[in-house]
Amino acid sequence: MLKGNCVIAQSGGPTAVINNSLAGAIEAACRGEAIGEIYGACNGIMGILAENFIDLRRQDAATIQGLRFTPGAALGSCRYQLKKKEEYDKLLAVFRKFNIRYFFYIGGNDSMDTAHKVNQLAQEEGYELRVIGIPKTVDNDLPLTDHCPGYGSAAKYLAASVLEMGIDIKSIVTSTKVAIVEAMGRNTGWLAAATALARRAPGEAPHLIYLPEVAFDPDAFLADVETAYRQYGTVLVVVSEGLVDKNGNYIFNDAATVDVFGHQRLGGLGQFLLNKIEAELKIKGRFILPATSQRSAMHLASRTDAEEAYNVGRVAVEEALRGASGHMVAIKRLEGEEYRCTYELVELDKVANREKKVPRAWINTAGNNVTADFINYARPLIQGEVNVPYHNGLPAYVNLAPVSSGETG
Amino acid sequence: MLKGNCVIAQSGGPTAVINNSLAGAIEAACRGEAIGEIYGACNGIMGILAENFIDLRRQDAATIQGLRFTPGAALGSCRYQLKKKEEYDKLLAVFRKFNIRYFFYIGGNDSMDTAHKVNQLAQEEGYELRVIGIPKTVDNDLPLTDHCPGYGSAAKYLAASVLEMGIDIKSIVTSTKVAIVEAMGRNTGWLAAATALARRAPGEAPHLIYLPEVAFDPDAFLADVETAYRQYGTVLVVVSEGLVDKNGNYIFNDAATVDVFGHQRLGGLGQFLLNKIEAELKIKGRFILPATSQRSAMHLASRTDAEEAYNVGRVAVEEALRGASGHMVAIKRLEGEEYRCTYELVELDKVANREKKVPRAWINTAGNNVTADFINYARPLIQGEVNVPYHNGLPAYVNLAPVSSGETG
Repeated sequence: MLKGNCVIAQSGGPTAVINNSLAGAIEAACRGEAIGEIYGACNGIMGILAENFIDLRRQDAATIQGLRFTPGAALGSCRYQLKKKEEYDKLLAVFRKFNIRYFFYIGGNDSMDTAHKVNQLAQEEGYELRVIGIPKTVDNDLPLTDHCPGYGSAAKYLAASVLEMGIDIKSIVTSTKVAIVEAMGRNTGWLAAATALARRAPGEAPHLIYLPEVAFDPDAFLADVETAYRQYGTVLVVVSEGLVDKNGNYIFNDAATVDVFGHQRLGGLGQFLLNKIEAELKIKGRFILPATSQRSAMHLASRTDAEEAYNVGRVAVEEALRGASGHMVAIKRLEGEEYRCTYELVELDKVANREKKVPRAWINTAGNNVTADFINYARPLIQGEVNVPYHNGLPAYVNLAPVSSGETG
Repeated sequence: MLKGNCVIAQSGGPTAVINNSLAGAIEAACRGEAIGEIYGACNGIMGILAENFIDLRRQDAATIQGLRFTPGAALGSCRYQLKKKEEYDKLLAVFRKFNIRYFFYIGGNDSMDTAHKVNQLAQEEGYELRVIGIPKTVDNDLPLTDHCPGYGSAAKYLAASVLEMGIDIKSIVTSTKVAIVEAMGRNTGWLAAATALARRAPGEAPHLIYLPEVAFDPDAFLADVETAYRQYGTVLVVVSEGLVDKNGNYIFNDAATVDVFGHQRLGGLGQFLLNKIEAELKIKGRFILPATSQRSAMHLASRTDAEEAYNVGRVAVEEALRGASGHMVAIKRLEGEEYRCTYELVELDKVANREKKVPRAWINTAGNNVTADFINYARPLIQGEVNVPYHNGLPAYVNLAPVSSGETG
């Protein structure tokens, strides 16, 4: 049994449930007899390089429990990729200094790449270290896992919001006729696709959904909107922020203009498309940009997602204690009518820097909707609600206590 | 006792709880022995002119109960002001034809004006009619009522969202440094102001709040953002969509540019201000536009607001049955430490076409924040949660059954 301290870090864009993974890892680490100190790295890998740790053993039980209801990266996060050999060396030096033998990295594609390289370096240097990646991303784009913790909650929030926006726009007859909702997802359309879950009956919102997986044709788009408008009276359109044309260029970049001050004006894709609709089709519309609410709306998180996020954190630590290293915890969906999943380890280097797109077969031929197969895939992931505690009318979110460890290695 | 049929209509932009008022009115009307048919006008006043009614007595109990959890205008709504004398005459003719003796109009300023004029015309023509206005608006801009049903829920949703966005932006250190959230409120800043409720401690989001009640100075704004950025590292700014400069011109209009297709490009105010920040201060930012979610997010409605919305509908019918007409039901806040309110009648013509602004004394001197007096006013309005039922992972919202009455007058 490898004895030593452990460090947990969070990386990249937060999700509503990223702290569930942290809580799962902390609680499993507390149960692990081989683990001494439990360091939380402040602001991801940068906190390790800077030796900026907080003591996760000294958090009270209410705070750890509160993590299960708190969005954002409680430890702080960063987008920072180690590039130079010296940075990896420095990381390993910190691990040695603090006798860190367990490294748990909660993140997406880039983070899995970092974790993989750290694991390799430790092996090369003969420093015994266990490295396990804990997946998180609202984008749902990690390969080798059925889905990613964080996605189900973002999907649930966005689908519920689109359901509500759809009811709203349909219920007032003399006003806005088109709404464009811009969903997160730079290169993959998982989140935009999830809004199809809001459609309870044919003809209900969202009427049109566009994903980056299919080349976007502005003329076909305008024709689609006009057809839907004639058919339904009001049209709710969902677009992924990262739509590209047939040459792979972002539609968004075509929208660059110069404002009255001579500055380049980069509106969002959704606003650009709405302007096109208003100008070409003479239909009045509205732009809706939920932006970071998609990854922070813990108040409408999926209980399924929150529990799975907790479990991938827990399993990561348990597997490391059993001797695993160089792996990411993946979610495997089991066969059968009822949704059930289990957890397994996949090799970090097979996950790193790869992107899982929405299969073309789950998008309709016209490229403006998803199929029943997608719905069957996504529906189980948004099931159940998280009973967030409220204080004084608002969710009672917690902060970690900024206590550093008395021990320095 | 005036015997006859009644009609209920919904007008203007929906709110999360506008159907609570409808439910309150229906249930009170069902109890009223003087009332025969209970007509629901489809799409507001347009439905009355078109004799397009559904039978609200023939809705089952589960549907009426479901209205208390369903956003949007269940009857359909419109923005349509009767202008010509002939339209008012037509309205009265429909009332005569259907023996409608009670008219309940759920709406904002314009609707109260319509209700007032209908009441006057009926008196002039000697047609005995009881007209009561039922207030609703997320904008909270109706005079003579402490606050407006719909506002508390929009305020709660927006404050919770800003709380979550603030946690998100603060938790990732190498990315977006400024977020601009554009709140609804064309001429009044009540909704933008409500986001201050999210601030649990000094230095937390929202860091800056700008309301249309104070002339907007772009230079002071940029200086504010830069100062806050230096102080806090990340800045969350909330702006009302209707900010105006010292001459009363919308800041928004200054943002009009022409896109690459030669079309006028009207981005939102928030995007415009973000572009200014990025260009002038070289700070990377993000724009967030919750738009209609503010008025449709029943999933995070205020229980206080939902109950008050129900009660203004109920009281409207009860007072009409007691003989009142030409009034709007207003909410009166009672003195005392604990928040309590009662309902009273105010004259429609004193409400019509007037706008209640955020008092200047509730905005700080610099015009970039609100005072404790505002917080004390707004905090009680967001208390309590509505336990929306869920089905298959999403809120289980209802539709009225499209049954028309067998009786036609």
